[in-house]
Amino acid sequence: MSAVLDHSGRDPYESRVASTPEIVGRVDPVVYARAGDKGPLTREQLRQYESQGFLEIDNLFDAGEIETLLAELDRLRRARDGLDREIDPETLILEPHSRELRSIFAIHAQSALFARLASDERLAGIARYLLGDEVYIHQSRLNYKPGFFGKEFYWHSDFETWHIEDGMPRMRALSISIALTRNTSYNGPLMLIPGSHKRYVRCVGETPDDHYKQSLRKQEYGVPDPGSLQQLYADGGIATATGPAGKIVVFDCNTMHGSNSNISPLPRSNVFLVYNSVSNRLVTPFGKKAPRPEFVATRKTFAPIAPVSGRIA
Amino acid sequence: MSAVLDHSGRDPYESRVASTPEIVGRVDPVVYARAGDKGPLTREQLRQYESQGFLEIDNLFDAGEIETLLAELDRLRRARDGLDREIDPETLILEPHSRELRSIFAIHAQSALFARLASDERLAGIARYLLGDEVYIHQSRLNYKPGFFGKEFYWHSDFETWHIEDGMPRMRALSISIALTRNTSYNGPLMLIPGSHKRYVRCVGETPDDHYKQSLRKQEYGVPDPGSLQQLYADGGIATATGPAGKIVVFDCNTMHGSNSNISPLPRSNVFLVYNSVSNRLVTPFGKKAPRPEFVATRKTFAPIAPVSGRIA
Repeated sequence: MSAVLDHSGRDPYESRVASTPEIVGRVDPVVYARAGDKGPLTREQLRQYESQGFLEIDNLFDAGEIETLLAELDRLRRARDGLDREIDPETLILEPHSRELRSIFAIHAQSALFARLASDERLAGIARYLLGDEVYIHQSRLNYKPGFFGKEFYWHSDFETWHIEDGMPRMRALSISIALTRNTSYNGPLMLIPGSHKRYVRCVGETPDDHYKQSLRKQEYGVPDPGSLQQLYADGGIATATGPAGKIVVFDCNTMHGSNSNISPLPRSNVFLVYNSVSNRLVTPFGKKAPRPEFVATRKTFAPIAPVSGRIA
Repeated sequence: MSAVLDHSGRDPYESRVASTPEIVGRVDPVVYARAGDKGPLTREQLRQYESQGFLEIDNLFDAGEIETLLAELDRLRRARDGLDREIDPETLILEPHSRELRSIFAIHAQSALFARLASDERLAGIARYLLGDEVYIHQSRLNYKPGFFGKEFYWHSDFETWHIEDGMPRMRALSISIALTRNTSYNGPLMLIPGSHKRYVRCVGETPDDHYKQSLRKQEYGVPDPGSLQQLYADGGIATATGPAGKIVVFDCNTMHGSNSNISPLPRSNVFLVYNSVSNRLVTPFGKKAPRPEFVATRKTFAPIAPVSGRIA
């Protein structure tokens, strides 16, 4: 674990310790691909990911593939209602203040189809290239964001939570979101703050025990303060990831993001897959609490993904 | 009151009575201007308001006027914090789950500047023309929709509430919203369902006593059911009123509208002015409960507005 501390022995990504917030610089690379590496992204895409902290790509999947994934998403929602027993109830997260299904976690471990998606070379290939390493799935989930009642996801850097609560040492992970429904300006699309990934907001306050049980519904600790967000926003603005079903957004583990509520009738359903570098596997949580359960943060197996090619059917 | 009932003696806009929802046709005109009436709108604007149920207009006010109004909005927020006593505490509505200021009601009665705005011929002139009558202010408010913590306004037809809870007989009223900050796709802009004003959704359930105390923060009764909203949305889609500060939206009292939350740092502050035809003044509430207080629904004075011309300064 000493390799992740700086020369003074201090964790460069310390958080939830001080009583006032602080913004510090990122000490890790954003793109780990080495010059000359062959990869699935253009030079312009690389440049954009490096400077903005995210990348939007259309048309990676065809309409039939997205239909197949959407049908599986619907099937899993019904499975939750007792049609069968394949889903671990602990992995089901409900909306705050309602009984609507918000998310299912660990879908790569519970659905053969989403396991196949996670290994798809179109996605895993991008992750391997950007992270310059073999990768495994640190976390996966379906976000249903149902129409009418979908609540917001407040601003957060995933990395802050993964570092403090899960023990992810460094910023060498990324998320890929695959839209399974149309994302419009009005159904609570993903919002990202361009450039925010190059700075790290140390949050104030402590982490309560078993925080994840509440935080997966509504985050209240480890959230950035308004002043820091105002500063990131003043520098980078807000980008909104709208587009057709099938569009993907690749974003760095430290890019500040969130989404507003969705009162529109149109659900905003997405698959989230988090790829971590196998060199960046989890250690003891830096917040010094018990780690979160396996379905939220993979600790037991770091076997690298073997990318699979071909259509999803 | 008999004039507002149909031939069978039934209230055509009955609501919150049945246990299943119903969508019925509007029995009132949308535009009351008579052929040959001179007015401030073009033929195209009239046509759009009639068919869509709303109209967006830029550049009615200059930048200096908007600055003046915004400064007054900020001053009133500070006044709330005890700097003076000009604001009736009952008219202050807080965000659900926080102490942030959501709205101030009856601002035309509490601020000379907003009284002046309500009488401005650029606004009152449009209301008089569309409603074909003298008008008065039925309700007014500032919506702060603060950054970070602004919660959604769920879908509603204003008229349903005004009819059932306030005793507004007919659909002969309209709202004008004046944006005092930039409205973007990401700070919870006003959303409207085009064409929804021509149908009336009878809501299910009853109205609790003193419902307004809760409903101004978060509406839970008199809300349209998901099935009816789905139907209106399938036919009309959703229009989002984004634009610069100073832009106004004029919308019919029965246009289905709402807005999502605002986690962005940018507040979405608006003035809402509701103009009612003097021929449509309030009677006993159709929901047969005690009427809501004066600051939410004007009952004591129906004196017509005398439009005032000139710049606001």
